[in-house]
Amino acid sequence: MQLSGEQRERFARDGLLLLPGLFSPAEVGLLRAELPELFAEQDPANIRERDGGEVRTAMGLHLRNRLFAKLVRHPRLLGPARQLRGDALYVQQVKVNVKAAFEGEQWQWHYDFATHHSEDGVPEPLALNLHVFLDDVTEFNGPLYFIPGSHAQGPAPAWLDTRTTSYPLWVVARDTVSDLVGEHGLVSATGPAGTGLIFGDTMVHASPANISPWDRAIFSVILNPVANALTRHQRPDFKHHRDLTPVAPLPDDCLLSAAAAE
Amino acid sequence: MQLSGEQRERFARDGLLLLPGLFSPAEVGLLRAELPELFAEQDPANIRERDGGEVRTAMGLHLRNRLFAKLVRHPRLLGPARQLRGDALYVQQVKVNVKAAFEGEQWQWHYDFATHHSEDGVPEPLALNLHVFLDDVTEFNGPLYFIPGSHAQGPAPAWLDTRTTSYPLWVVARDTVSDLVGEHGLVSATGPAGTGLIFGDTMVHASPANISPWDRAIFSVILNPVANALTRHQRPDFKHHRDLTPVAPLPDDCLLSAAAAE
Repeated sequence: MQLSGEQRERFARDGLLLLPGLFSPAEVGLLRAELPELFAEQDPANIRERDGGEVRTAMGLHLRNRLFAKLVRHPRLLGPARQLRGDALYVQQVKVNVKAAFEGEQWQWHYDFATHHSEDGVPEPLALNLHVFLDDVTEFNGPLYFIPGSHAQGPAPAWLDTRTTSYPLWVVARDTVSDLVGEHGLVSATGPAGTGLIFGDTMVHASPANISPWDRAIFSVILNPVANALTRHQRPDFKHHRDLTPVAPLPDDCLLSAAAAE
Repeated sequence: MQLSGEQRERFARDGLLLLPGLFSPAEVGLLRAELPELFAEQDPANIRERDGGEVRTAMGLHLRNRLFAKLVRHPRLLGPARQLRGDALYVQQVKVNVKAAFEGEQWQWHYDFATHHSEDGVPEPLALNLHVFLDDVTEFNGPLYFIPGSHAQGPAPAWLDTRTTSYPLWVVARDTVSDLVGEHGLVSATGPAGTGLIFGDTMVHASPANISPWDRAIFSVILNPVANALTRHQRPDFKHHRDLTPVAPLPDDCLLSAAAAE
């Protein structure tokens, strides 16, 4: 799969791109069916909410599960990513972010490069974050909020917040968020399960808590050019993988054929 | 002002009614201009957020401010209320609920009658809650979520939650919320400043935290039939006023003329 010229222009201008219907209900159903077992594992890569103990983020999934191993090489994700950042991309991080019904906490205002640069020594903000919605994402169950165009101003000042939630995060100061939103406004990324989403490493975003009775799971793979790899290794492998082998795309039916073969 | 037959039917069916453009930008501007001074008062009727100390709810405002004294008698609020519940209505509670930008906390799933009945001994769920948006209310700054039709099932089981936020609240259990939402769905009440909203005493609702850079202030007056008055007086007057004098409507221009007279 390739992005159109119009889609590439939109990504360059807004810093994000929503791809409705990227994966079929059957494909999403297969991926969702893997989650209960993965979430039940006692694994440091399963990060739980501070209150309640529900899984907030399950990481390193391509090393823990055969279907997610295929998903990180799926041509509908890897095709657009290679178009935008070249062919030599390694898998930096793989996760499912869950906002459990009633329980799921907020993610503060941040952009990913602040963490990638400060923690892992990634030189440039070239990584791409590619999402697949595994539940319907609505205004009610904790969608991501983006400041479109915020990526273009480059890395904003950020500081490490270890207090607000169970996941330490390099966050953007409120004054900066107010200024950026005043200039660019806000959009929320919503859509049915199967929707895809791409955004870059300096895109400022956040997401509210989920007070609705609907779970909200989103798959995320971060792909980074091999030439822009990490230079520090202080975080665990599941937060930034050390395997810099460029990933090659699999056939388009790789999820369904893997399931059929079992 | 009177509701149309269609509006009354909608209120009976859904349990809530949105009234776009109920107050003009000039009227909203006058009311908003009163807030900083009221919020700065050291008054037990100003209830602050647990973290941050921002005012979450400023109560008893019709006894503290001449413009809010007029607003509780405004014909665009009192007209519809008298149509729905008869002419003899007293002012039970008056407040501005604020969700400060970045700071404003959630309100848990609840309906007002659980508090009115358990705390104040109100016999029947006849009170009406009438809102006026004093800021634009969007999907981003903590709008109210309603379960339309939930009012029709009557009072759901509720328990007193003193833990989640700084305001003790009789809340509805998660299983009940899930069942009601499964049956009826969810709607959010959004609209520009000046929008009006009416809902009844058994309507189940909640609102998420405000992580956006936009404040969100909403005026609320609860009107209750005199024949259905409180029978217990354990809460402070500003949470349920003891003055059962029926309120009579003022002229339609009462806000602007009061301001012009000064």
